[in-house]
Amino acid sequence: MTKKTIAFDADDTLWHNEPYFDEAQEKFCELFSGFASKQELLTLILNHQVRNLPLYGFGIKAFTLSMIESALDLTNHQLNGQVVEKIIQIGKDLLQKPVELLPEVETVLQALKPKYKLVVATKGDLKDQHRKLHDSGIGHYFHHIEVMSDKKEVDYQKMLGRLDCKPEDFIMIGNSLKSDVLPVLNIGGTGIHIPYHTTWEYEKIDFEIVHDNFKSIHAITEILDFL
Amino acid sequence: MTKKTIAFDADDTLWHNEPYFDEAQEKFCELFSGFASKQELLTLILNHQVRNLPLYGFGIKAFTLSMIESALDLTNHQLNGQVVEKIIQIGKDLLQKPVELLPEVETVLQALKPKYKLVVATKGDLKDQHRKLHDSGIGHYFHHIEVMSDKKEVDYQKMLGRLDCKPEDFIMIGNSLKSDVLPVLNIGGTGIHIPYHTTWEYEKIDFEIVHDNFKSIHAITEILDFL
Repeated sequence: MTKKTIAFDADDTLWHNEPYFDEAQEKFCELFSGFASKQELLTLILNHQVRNLPLYGFGIKAFTLSMIESALDLTNHQLNGQVVEKIIQIGKDLLQKPVELLPEVETVLQALKPKYKLVVATKGDLKDQHRKLHDSGIGHYFHHIEVMSDKKEVDYQKMLGRLDCKPEDFIMIGNSLKSDVLPVLNIGGTGIHIPYHTTWEYEKIDFEIVHDNFKSIHAITEILDFL
Repeated sequence: MTKKTIAFDADDTLWHNEPYFDEAQEKFCELFSGFASKQELLTLILNHQVRNLPLYGFGIKAFTLSMIESALDLTNHQLNGQVVEKIIQIGKDLLQKPVELLPEVETVLQALKPKYKLVVATKGDLKDQHRKLHDSGIGHYFHHIEVMSDKKEVDYQKMLGRLDCKPEDFIMIGNSLKSDVLPVLNIGGTGIHIPYHTTWEYEKIDFEIVHDNFKSIHAITEILDFL
């Protein structure tokens, strides 16, 4: 019998991530506190990120470039080099943050590994995600890491094609209903949601999901009750 | 019998790429023509790119950030926002270049597809390489596209693990001896070199390769003579 495949989102599912982004955005807001309110600054960055998605995709380099563009807007292009350097450094700091596993992640992987094919399915920068998986010390539990340029239905379908896995044999676990759950349900897979205490604005949805193949849990260990 | 796997490098193997980078660097050099010679400017960018590789990896976003850092160096941080905007635009233009296939690429893929598992194995930006494969119109010839954070031996070994492919059943075709040929020979695969008329400084090596599993050819159609 073919093993079912369980894919884990990485950021804020296996390890902490969003707090680092929040901290980075705080630093940006401090640099431009005289220009606009914090909320306006955050919205400006987000708008640039979303507008740049088709060209840049996800990840920290895209975030850095979007911060620079936001700074150009704010200063009407009267931005000085020292500030540009500081923004670039905010991005580089993010790329070097320690990888801190969420509680019980390793216990769960250890229990699942004999019975399932485990993969990591994440967006973000290729190099950065590989680095984090390496630094996490849990790389050996996974068949492979799939860094995806997006997490739409078509992206999951391509991944399943490569993994030679039928949708009904695919379980995705992550903290984003929009990226980790909805598209997977739509292609016939199972989606398990583990909310993280803070969510990137872009990943939020404003409706409830009701679906036979959907589960929402509070702690990663709960998946052992039914897998 | 398992099909052998043939992996094609993408940039300057399947489609033109380096001339676009050269053109982008030209534009940067025009912006800073009063600051240093063209050769010095190119060396400066390259040094930043190489220094940033461990954090940024390969690709256009990394290149853009490295151009900005080079500009900060050149101006002793007295860089104005208009110029930063122009540099960002150089990067965005690169991300939107048309994909122009090299001659006879499609003929060769058509001939090989029934007999081999074909993949694309490339460095660069995830989103950008997926976009180019899509725009190229040749995506359907490939089992999948593997965007690699580097092309060292360990990276190839990981890829072969995922593809369930033994090194002796693996053939890599590309324009870089350093990235497409040497590491593949070192892990027991076959490396085929098709030089492109211009090579990125970083990819150059200064010795000859002599190896039973190595072939150098001038046009992609030549591989049909022995595959």
